[in-house]
Amino acid sequence: MSMQTKFLLDESQMPRFWYNIQADLPKPAPAVLHPGTLQPVGPDDLAPLFPMTLIQQEVSLEREIEIPEPVRDVFRLWRPSPLMRAHRLEKALGTPAKIYYKYEGVSPAGSHKPNTAVPQAFYNKEAGVKRLVTETGAGQWGTSLAFAGSLYGLQVEVYQVRVSYDQKPYRRAVMETYGARCVASPSNETVYGRSVLSKNPNHPGSLGIAISEAVELAVQRDDTKYALGSVLNHVLLHQTIVGQEAMEQMKMADAWPDVVIGCAGGGSNFAGISFPFIGHALRGGEKSRIVAAEPAACPSLTRGKYAYDFGDTGHMTPLSKMHTLGSSFTPPGFHAGGLRYHGMAPLVSHCKELGLLEAVAFNQVECFEAGVLFARNEGIVPAPESNHAVRAAIVEALRCKREGKAENILFCLSGHGHFDMASYQKFFAGELSDESYDDKELAMALAGLPSVAESA
Amino acid sequence: MSMQTKFLLDESQMPRFWYNIQADLPKPAPAVLHPGTLQPVGPDDLAPLFPMTLIQQEVSLEREIEIPEPVRDVFRLWRPSPLMRAHRLEKALGTPAKIYYKYEGVSPAGSHKPNTAVPQAFYNKEAGVKRLVTETGAGQWGTSLAFAGSLYGLQVEVYQVRVSYDQKPYRRAVMETYGARCVASPSNETVYGRSVLSKNPNHPGSLGIAISEAVELAVQRDDTKYALGSVLNHVLLHQTIVGQEAMEQMKMADAWPDVVIGCAGGGSNFAGISFPFIGHALRGGEKSRIVAAEPAACPSLTRGKYAYDFGDTGHMTPLSKMHTLGSSFTPPGFHAGGLRYHGMAPLVSHCKELGLLEAVAFNQVECFEAGVLFARNEGIVPAPESNHAVRAAIVEALRCKREGKAENILFCLSGHGHFDMASYQKFFAGELSDESYDDKELAMALAGLPSVAESA
Repeated sequence: MSMQTKFLLDESQMPRFWYNIQADLPKPAPAVLHPGTLQPVGPDDLAPLFPMTLIQQEVSLEREIEIPEPVRDVFRLWRPSPLMRAHRLEKALGTPAKIYYKYEGVSPAGSHKPNTAVPQAFYNKEAGVKRLVTETGAGQWGTSLAFAGSLYGLQVEVYQVRVSYDQKPYRRAVMETYGARCVASPSNETVYGRSVLSKNPNHPGSLGIAISEAVELAVQRDDTKYALGSVLNHVLLHQTIVGQEAMEQMKMADAWPDVVIGCAGGGSNFAGISFPFIGHALRGGEKSRIVAAEPAACPSLTRGKYAYDFGDTGHMTPLSKMHTLGSSFTPPGFHAGGLRYHGMAPLVSHCKELGLLEAVAFNQVECFEAGVLFARNEGIVPAPESNHAVRAAIVEALRCKREGKAENILFCLSGHGHFDMASYQKFFAGELSDESYDDKELAMALAGLPSVAESA
Repeated sequence: MSMQTKFLLDESQMPRFWYNIQADLPKPAPAVLHPGTLQPVGPDDLAPLFPMTLIQQEVSLEREIEIPEPVRDVFRLWRPSPLMRAHRLEKALGTPAKIYYKYEGVSPAGSHKPNTAVPQAFYNKEAGVKRLVTETGAGQWGTSLAFAGSLYGLQVEVYQVRVSYDQKPYRRAVMETYGARCVASPSNETVYGRSVLSKNPNHPGSLGIAISEAVELAVQRDDTKYALGSVLNHVLLHQTIVGQEAMEQMKMADAWPDVVIGCAGGGSNFAGISFPFIGHALRGGEKSRIVAAEPAACPSLTRGKYAYDFGDTGHMTPLSKMHTLGSSFTPPGFHAGGLRYHGMAPLVSHCKELGLLEAVAFNQVECFEAGVLFARNEGIVPAPESNHAVRAAIVEALRCKREGKAENILFCLSGHGHFDMASYQKFFAGELSDESYDDKELAMALAGLPSVAESA
């Protein structure tokens, strides 16, 4: 073959600014509302949870927001991340398309999550915060925040859903290696946790309960704040470094993408790869098709309603307008745990409403098939979440084959699957099927959406 | 800090030749002997096991051996690997030394092993071989050969020690993702396996038994050959790409290493980082101290005898002169499984005898402590094997601190620990102790070495 496979940027070429899509949107995103007053939330409402710099980033309309030098210093450990040309996958598919992937699994935590964990830890440290609390399900976010905390000398406490805490001790071991304290949720350490345990001492936990416990602790203590790994505007902002690097690297490859693909759960990975390309087109540059790949078993963008909803099941958060399956919707237990969220990031949802992106949904088994094909040709075993993007890229490459088009396809491989081999094991044992939700449950969850006047 | 952390080579700077230390040795390494005749083995003796190109590499005296272009094409997936400056670890230690590490965990299998698995698969494919059989313990080698086989369309069968097969299903899942067939050893598929099972149907297996099964199958079938992941000259040769890249990268950093460190089990990782530096000095270039870091519980270089011995416990291999604890020595069950081998590679052993390298041994707990310190400062969680090199680098850095010397320390971080988190978990639970062998057993194993006239 002898063809270039990796497109690498030097440390000196690492972006110095995050890209804020809010500066370029033709119509501003709807306001976030206080659930009591239904009035837009102000900085003071969020101050118990986040440091002021992050709250300012949440609402900023500036196009470029500087990445602090100490954050860039940490990023040097793995950024800029590589852009790869998937020569062998192209050959296996017999497609005239060129497939490129931006690989975020090179971070110490193995996914894109440290891109926001590191600046969040930095801004909290700068604000005098001593401790960060967060929740985690499968553990990717908890691992990333634990890593970030260890670098800045911040205590990190992770409320891990009990069933994951018990079943995935290795993820917990990684968090402990970084010095974090992991607590099985529901726990006896919070009022809310004790109330859940009093009803059911063997409660398996849920992400919603873990969020409530983490938020309760952050609100209670002056030296403690909360950190969230997706959905919020500032989290999406931090991930745009991915797409900005990819844009430079696609230029190096002399291959502007005809289509840009990301898997979408809460939306931060998808926004990271796509927002810089959306913004480029909004400012009059070349246009790419933008495709969000989501799980068919939790299809907020393709089957959800665009409406105001809570971010959590316990209804402790503000109301955001987003594509939602309803905050009471419980996604079935498929293996891409990072995509099991009832809502989509408000900024991603808004872009969908503005016609700036498309969404597709894939079933579990076809995603694992795509991941195995990818691994056997490109070497990397993708995370189950990332398999949705791999599947979407293969679908586009096969369309190019049918249409005889040599398009450039770019997707984000958000992480590796080293901690998810139990799911591959089940796939090979023939024990995986396409999970699906109950139509009635979805209808009920959607019927239960909070009632908010559209003028809000 | 704002100081350069990564030293990257472009694909075009990837070495085109492996470095063969046999060309520069002041005295040739002792011959490998046939166990029956005690005469040097010839190519025909090895032909049932290996393709002729690898047998030729085993005995070649040429300094540079060309890396085939199709092998370099596969290497592009992750090579050249990064050289990193450990700024944060230096600061944590308060040392004036500069610590650099060459990181081999970026390969799809997560360690240095694909550096030889890929060329071995390539040469076998070229020779018309259809199937490769090998053994694996913890699974790093089996994973790497499975990965390499998937790229060249070779069937790969891995005889995995039963206790690992049962206890580490995730490693097996990775091998199956790459399309390999894993068989628990002892198995019913070989004469030798059946003989072991007939005596003990619940035999937990051992690396020695798995080797015997793999060799038996390779010898039996014309379309099948055997592959070994360490110890042999051609395996060490393939790993020299690591040290050659590191040499270029240390020049980029303007920091010639005062000391070069690798962990040593069978010897291939250690040879990979060190042989190019040893050769450079042998040819009159700058001299570096060369340090092999081995486990105190399996200390072939520091406590073994330099003598002719078998490579396996079943005594099916030729006799090699090496530092050995005796082929009947059973290392205690410490967690750096990749370092649990009774002998040291003959070429590494020979260099030790020639005074070209030093060896140090470390206990298990101090190695995990080093790994945790590394992870909390540099982000990467090292493999338990690599922790021995991390420990050695820390010892050197603290010596520099005492002596007030700003030396350049280079070590190879041979792999990440994502598949070894169970051992970190035990470390944090306080369940790890320093394993030690039985002195009497070692004395008996050494007394049982085969008797070979020294003139041989």
